[in-house]
Amino acid sequence: MELTHVTVAVDAMGGDRAPEAVLPGVAAALQADPALTVALVGPDEVVAPFATERSRVTPVAASQVIAMDEHPANAVRSKPDSSIVVGCRLVRDGAADAFFSAGSTGACMAAATLIVGRAQGVSRPAIAAIIPAPSRPVVLLDIGANADCKPEHLVQFAFMGAAYARTMLGVAQPSVGLLNIGEEPTKGSALAQAAHALLAQRVPGFIGNVEGRDLPRGAVDVVVTDGFTGNVALKVMEGLSAVLFSEIKSAMTSSPVRAAAAAVLKGSLTQLKHRLDPDAYGGAPLLGIKRPCLIGHGSSGPEAIAAGIAAAARAARLGLVEIVARDVASAGVA
Amino acid sequence: MELTHVTVAVDAMGGDRAPEAVLPGVAAALQADPALTVALVGPDEVVAPFATERSRVTPVAASQVIAMDEHPANAVRSKPDSSIVVGCRLVRDGAADAFFSAGSTGACMAAATLIVGRAQGVSRPAIAAIIPAPSRPVVLLDIGANADCKPEHLVQFAFMGAAYARTMLGVAQPSVGLLNIGEEPTKGSALAQAAHALLAQRVPGFIGNVEGRDLPRGAVDVVVTDGFTGNVALKVMEGLSAVLFSEIKSAMTSSPVRAAAAAVLKGSLTQLKHRLDPDAYGGAPLLGIKRPCLIGHGSSGPEAIAAGIAAAARAARLGLVEIVARDVASAGVA
Repeated sequence: MELTHVTVAVDAMGGDRAPEAVLPGVAAALQADPALTVALVGPDEVVAPFATERSRVTPVAASQVIAMDEHPANAVRSKPDSSIVVGCRLVRDGAADAFFSAGSTGACMAAATLIVGRAQGVSRPAIAAIIPAPSRPVVLLDIGANADCKPEHLVQFAFMGAAYARTMLGVAQPSVGLLNIGEEPTKGSALAQAAHALLAQRVPGFIGNVEGRDLPRGAVDVVVTDGFTGNVALKVMEGLSAVLFSEIKSAMTSSPVRAAAAAVLKGSLTQLKHRLDPDAYGGAPLLGIKRPCLIGHGSSGPEAIAAGIAAAARAARLGLVEIVARDVASAGVA
Repeated sequence: MELTHVTVAVDAMGGDRAPEAVLPGVAAALQADPALTVALVGPDEVVAPFATERSRVTPVAASQVIAMDEHPANAVRSKPDSSIVVGCRLVRDGAADAFFSAGSTGACMAAATLIVGRAQGVSRPAIAAIIPAPSRPVVLLDIGANADCKPEHLVQFAFMGAAYARTMLGVAQPSVGLLNIGEEPTKGSALAQAAHALLAQRVPGFIGNVEGRDLPRGAVDVVVTDGFTGNVALKVMEGLSAVLFSEIKSAMTSSPVRAAAAAVLKGSLTQLKHRLDPDAYGGAPLLGIKRPCLIGHGSSGPEAIAAGIAAAARAARLGLVEIVARDVASAGVA
């Protein structure tokens, strides 16, 4: 099947290792996808030389950079010529079909909402994370865009997450769970109780409450929660994963004999680490935005950057945002 | 130093492996502590034969058992002769100095609150978990007693958690963090923002916001949050830890050569697993109750039961609840 041509706007300055990690990531993405064009956004001295050597790269100058620790909305407003803002403008104006950055998630969300705009019918765009549970990838949302939510928002998240699982992960009928602190419908906070009632009424595939331990276990395809709880859950997983792998490494190298044994196992443990690496899915999609926008982890290397660009291209080709908008409209809640 | 004599009321029927795991746990606790007496609460046919063989065990008959999945408050009301309710009554009446159960956390909290009662000045008792981070144990509260909280509650939690860290863990000046989704004081939900302001005003040792990844890393001594977020965070950690150890085991035994190498490492990995086992700290204390009450994990084996009984005895000897009440009173928030 011939691939439709797509253009992805890529933030050359996004991530802790930008632009060094981004440029080879772009090169790898282009090589893997002959129908891809990249609008590479960043300082002229970074993007121009890279573009002159490649026919499918359009350099787009942006003189400013938004740092990871800047206040998202303020930075977007005060830096109109930043790579994130310029990239989002390209998407808004139709010069690009999708946007990818490994920069500040907050700034990307702010720019995407303010510049690209919300998809029709979406009250609150959400950031989703794809958790690589052993049994299946779990779409968790929101992970930080909306610290305080209403039950109606969680219903929209359910439709957006399910649309993502169906379209991008190929799950025919995604199951949806509400993150809560007990199985019974009457458990949890006032928000969780009200959300449970509304989800049960409106969301096909809703299977009820799931608990924290069900997230890493992969008990359902989609888990909805407010952006506060989702962010804490995601960061707890990131932190614990790092701590455990580091502790295991120490335990395994605490004597020469152990180190020799560990060397035999290095390959399979590295494989495991890769398999459990969320970057494999191409970063966090901003769902409910008018065009596909994906955010890579700040620590993204070239492989993760390439995966993110590929996911953005795929989302554009599959019409993800149109499907999200149609499904949210069918939910009938605002 | 001679130990003060204490009596701990122990729920013989608490936990997934009760009473089989509880009885040897009681025996081990008695052996380790010559000044300990146990009031063992459970069906007569379980507690009487065990007590006749031991001079420091008083059998207390309780004909009912509250199952793990019963509605906490309803079960406490409808089963007045359950081991949890009878155990709490012993503590209320002064026949025991402290209570330990590895049964339903919710039912224990309900019984402790309704029967033993709140310590003076405490608005909302909280359940704390001791997270065994590599650098230090972290006291996390609330982990589920209060799904919806006010900022004032979080201030009381801070004082209760710090009192626990000082008294039971020997931390001279515990640092306290607010679980949030960003470092700046203005980040997070409405609750988190208001709590940050109040904590900064009232709590000595408050160092500001911490994020999800700081929990397993052990960035502070005490982390306060509402019971919804705390419960999700704790269960995410439990779930991920189980998934990772199981995946690592599979990866390490996927070929005969790997299995041989893994055999060399088994000892140090088992040690690591033990070191990261929360049960080592003797279970989850119910803070803000008039007498020490500790809840063990449902999966507790004899060692964890013994550790829980020892922690309950220690809390009674050190005057934990008096210290908690005094500190909460000094906070001046209700």
